Parts: sequence; C-alpha cells; structure tokens
Amino acid sequence: MVHGLAGKTKKSILKMLYENRDSFLSGQKISETLGCSRTAVWKHIRELQDQGFLIEAVQKSGYRLTAAPSGLNEAALSSGLETKSVGRHICFYDTIGSTQKEALRLADEGAEDGTLVITNQQIAGRGRLGHTWQSERGVNIAMSMILRPSLPIEKTPQMTLLTAVAAVKVIEDTTGLSCGIKWPNDILYEGRKLVGILTELQAEATFVKAVVIGIGMNVNTEESSFPEELKSKASSLRAITGVKYNLAEFVQSFLQTFERLYELFLEEGFSAIKPLWEMHAISLGKQIRVRQPGGKVLEGTALGINDEGVLLLKDGKGHVSRVYSADIEWS
Amino acid sequence: MVHGLAGKTKKSILKMLYENRDSFLSGQKISETLGCSRTAVWKHIRELQDQGFLIEAVQKSGYRLTAAPSGLNEAALSSGLETKSVGRHICFYDTIGSTQKEALRLADEGAEDGTLVITNQQIAGRGRLGHTWQSERGVNIAMSMILRPSLPIEKTPQMTLLTAVAAVKVIEDTTGLSCGIKWPNDILYEGRKLVGILTELQAEATFVKAVVIGIGMNVNTEESSFPEELKSKASSLRAITGVKYNLAEFVQSFLQTFERLYELFLEEGFSAIKPLWEMHAISLGKQIRVRQPGGKVLEGTALGINDEGVLLLKDGKGHVSRVYSADIEWS
Repeated sequence: MVHGLAGKTKKSILKMLYENRDSFLSGQKISETLGCSRTAVWKHIRELQDQGFLIEAVQKSGYRLTAAPSGLNEAALSSGLETKSVGRHICFYDTIGSTQKEALRLADEGAEDGTLVITNQQIAGRGRLGHTWQSERGVNIAMSMILRPSLPIEKTPQMTLLTAVAAVKVIEDTTGLSCGIKWPNDILYEGRKLVGILTELQAEATFVKAVVIGIGMNVNTEESSFPEELKSKASSLRAITGVKYNLAEFVQSFLQTFERLYELFLEEGFSAIKPLWEMHAISLGKQIRVRQPGGKVLEGTALGINDEGVLLLKDGKGHVSRVYSADIEWS
Repeated sequence: MVHGLAGKTKKSILKMLYENRDSFLSGQKISETLGCSRTAVWKHIRELQDQGFLIEAVQKSGYRLTAAPSGLNEAALSSGLETKSVGRHICFYDTIGSTQKEALRLADEGAEDGTLVITNQQIAGRGRLGHTWQSERGVNIAMSMILRPSLPIEKTPQMTLLTAVAAVKVIEDTTGLSCGIKWPNDILYEGRKLVGILTELQAEATFVKAVVIGIGMNVNTEESSFPEELKSKASSLRAITGVKYNLAEFVQSFLQTFERLYELFLEEGFSAIKPLWEMHAISLGKQIRVRQPGGKVLEGTALGINDEGVLLLKDGKGHVSRVYSADIEWS
C-alpha cells in the first residue's frame, strides 16, 4: 500500500492515466485536477516509471500510459469496476504473507463491508482445513473479500458455494472453459485444481461480524512452472488454453459476478443459488470417501446438497447422513 | 508472561513455594527437584521478592512464601486447580490491552482447547456489541477462555448462557449473593451489573475453529472507587458484602464450575442448561425494549427462551418473535 498525501496523489495520477490510456493527458490538466504543482506531477510520473509503468511523455501533448508492470496494481483494479460495494475499497499489497490473515485482522479492526485485500504475491497462503495454496508473483490471483451480511450464522457457509459458482461463471465467460465444482468449493478442470476457496466467519454470539472469503486462482502460471508432483493435481487457465489473461480484468469480472449472485442470495436465499451450484457440481451421484476434520472417514454415494447447502451422503445400508465440513475423494 | 528457561525455573520455584506455603522448603530440595544450582534458586527467589512476593528465608530451614502481591499470578492460578482442560494452559499478563483480543489472536495461531488468557489489568477491554468494560489493576477479574468444541456453529451462542449460569453459581457459592441474569448474559445484583460476558466465534465454513469467551467480573472494587455516573449501574461483590475476595480462588472456582456445566452441555445439549438459566433469569415475564445491532427497536413481553437459547418476545398483538442478538431494557 502507498501511504501519505504524496502517495495518494500518485495513485490519483495513475488512475487518471488509466482512464485516459487512449490519449495524451497534459501535465497542466493533471496538476489542475489534483491541485498539485506540475513539478510534483512530473516527479510522480518518474516514480511510476521507476515502478515499471511505461508512460510516454511528449512535449506539448503530455503523458500517456502505454503499459503497466505485469501483475496487478490498485489503479488497474479500481478503474472501471462496476460494483456497488464489493471491491470499492481495495487494500493492495505487492507482497503479503496471506491475504486471508490480513483480511481477518482488518475485519476485526472494523474494515468496511466489501473491502478487498489483494496481492501480487502471497508468500504464506492459508487453505481450507489448514491446507496451503502457493501463488507466484504477478501471475495468479490471491485475494480475500470482507463481507458483513445480515444473516444468521448458520447460513454463512452457503457463501462458500456461492463463491464457487461465481468463480466457475467468470472462468467460463472469460476463457470458454467449463469447469466443475467439487463439494464444497474446489474448482477443477479435468480433475486438476484451478481455484481454492476459503470462507471464515467472525461472530459475536449470534451476530455475524464478518465473513471473510479467500480465493486463490491459478490464472497465468505456465505449464512448465508446475512442480512435477503437482502436474496431475493442479493446473492454470494459461496452461490449458495457452492464453495469458489480464489479471485486473479477471478480478473485476469476478467481483461483478460475485456481487450479483451475493445480492440475489441476500434477497432470495440459498434456493436461488442452489440450481446454479448443482449445474456445475461434479461429485453428485459418485461413490465418494469423506474425510472429516476430526479424522473420521465415511464412504457412500454423494446424493446432492440440501436446501441449506449441506452434502447428503448415502451409505451402503441406504442411511443418509449430512456432511457439514470435510474433504471428499473419489477414484 | 515470563519467557525462556530461567523464567520457567522461576515459575516452577513459585509453584513449589505455593504448594508448600505452610512449611519451609530447603534450597537443596528446590535445586534437586528442578535440576538447577542453589545459587540459581537464590537468584530466582530474589527476583520473586523484587516482584512483591513476601518470601521468608531462614538459614538451615529454607524458604517460605508468606504473602503474594495483591492481584493474580500464574502460580496461584494453577496451583490446586481441579479441571481437566479449562485453564490447564494459562497465558498470564500483568497488563494487557484486551484478554479477548489476545485470546482471539492465540486461537488463530492454534492455542490448545481450554487455554485461559488472564490479566491483572485490562487497559482496553472489549464488550458485547462494542461496549467497553474497564478493569482496575489486581482488583477484578478479566479473562478469556479459548474453547474448541465439536459443535454446529449455530449452537455456539448457547455457550454464552452457559457461562452466565457458571458465573451466577460461583458468586452464590463464594459470597452467598443471589444474582440475576439479564438476557443473554449480564449478571446483575439489585439492578447493578457485576459481570459482563462476551462470546466470539471463529469458524471455517461450517467448522467451529474456536469459541472465545471473555468474562469481566467486578470483584474487589471499593464502593468509593466507582465513578459517580456508574454507581447506579454497576457494583462489585466487595461493595455489596464488604468482603475482599481471593481472586485466584475465585477464578479457580469459576473454571471448575464452568467446566462441569460445559461437559454437561456437550454431552446432553442445551436442554440440560436451560432450567438452570431460567432459574436465575430476571427478564422473564417483564415488558422489555429490545435494541438490535442494526438499530431496530422492538417492544413486548419477554416470554422466555426456547430450546435453542433464543429469546421469545410477544408484542402487543400477541405475535411472538425470536430475538437472536440485542440489548434489552426495562423500566
């Protein structure tokens, strides 16, 4: 994050350049709009160039942004974002241990509803049930959303399923790939993982203080960069399609799609999300093995999810049990 | 907290002195038991004396603890504690901003089930729905328990009611005072507050990671120490009975009582706790005003709690609504 008044001006200049990236923007115009000297504008432009932004400077015409450093930056994320609250406030870190841990901390300190914590490089990512998820610098998406829904606490786990639906939709819209959801929240393509989702809740007695949803998405990792032992388990959109995607646009599409589904969920409940989730579910009808947090293992047929988003498992004797949180496997 | 090997030895010496406080303990015995030199024993005793412990040293007899500094210390809290898990691991701080905040942090870092965070002085206490609760140095109880129950998340708010029952029982056993519980968790005596309870939940989707219960109890505050504006709203056990209580014993009794009720709750569910709660409830049957977190205000008659611990409110038209989290008032 960039701090202080000078940092704020630099961010505003970058935002103006982004929004006018087809034409030149005069130093005069920038200095008038932001109420700072032309020398200050020039100094900030130099700093942005040092950070890797390619900014053309032509006398009498002004400045024009021709390329941004690879990876994400705050201006690219916020410029043109069409959401009401999700991602309206962005905490961007070039490098961070874990966006989820930082988001939980910020949520605890009162961060506003919709705050997005996002980074170019996550060094110590947190995964569901303690699993880890690595993310290279400027290549993939690692982010966490802080949401403050007015919901009974027992309905918050449904937001995990909602997030999985949003991820599958955005991948389909952007890449044309049709992925599957493995209950509750892994996104797979031909059996290999592309997206991991982690939902955490902070509550005070019955009152939901915050739901923090972390998303790790393998976007631009090259096929050759995957370590040998992961090649059969994980993949990236780029490894599958050969295309390198614009990360900022990807994030924006996700936030917009997520917000639409989230509003629908808050208004109509999980029943509005359930058919969308089922449409992409790949574990239904399969013979699965369920490994629960305490270590208990169940086997049976995955019947589907009930109206609360809970997995229904039928064992060999026909007895149906509800599975709230677990890892599932099948052969 | 005391850190390192030397700190551990000092804690062990203090524990030995506590357990033998009726007789002298020779330096030889201490050095043999703990595997350190007699000079080291002598050095640690000097440090304990500097911290305010009155330790008699008599040649050929050894050391004897005659008085501890006022307030709490780790040895006094752990010596003789009869619990299985609650308070078996103690994080003691002479001064801390908030035991609840520290406990949430420790819970997040993996602190074990039953961990107790406790202090002699809480500088920035957290209260339910953002209220604050002040605690003077060495005079009152401010502590937070980290619990990791295997429970569906929607049942965790019932632990607030369970904690209130434990507090009322301990106060009655120790002081003979019969207090009332104002839903969900304030403990009052003649309309003035003695205890505040705050339950917070950390969950990952449907899986409860930790329930952190904070308890602030006005034990030894003198009547004259209450600020004028609080005298009608808050009191302390000492202000009512004139007796100064042993804080460490009070905490131990609480932990023991709490653990018994908690085990009962885990085995038999809230139905085993409900009648105990109702026996002490003072809001039942009253005309009350309910202020919800969003600012919404309801009025009606408090009918009681249902089997889930949720307050039932009957309005003027006879319609019964469920109140999950709110502040209640009556005239």
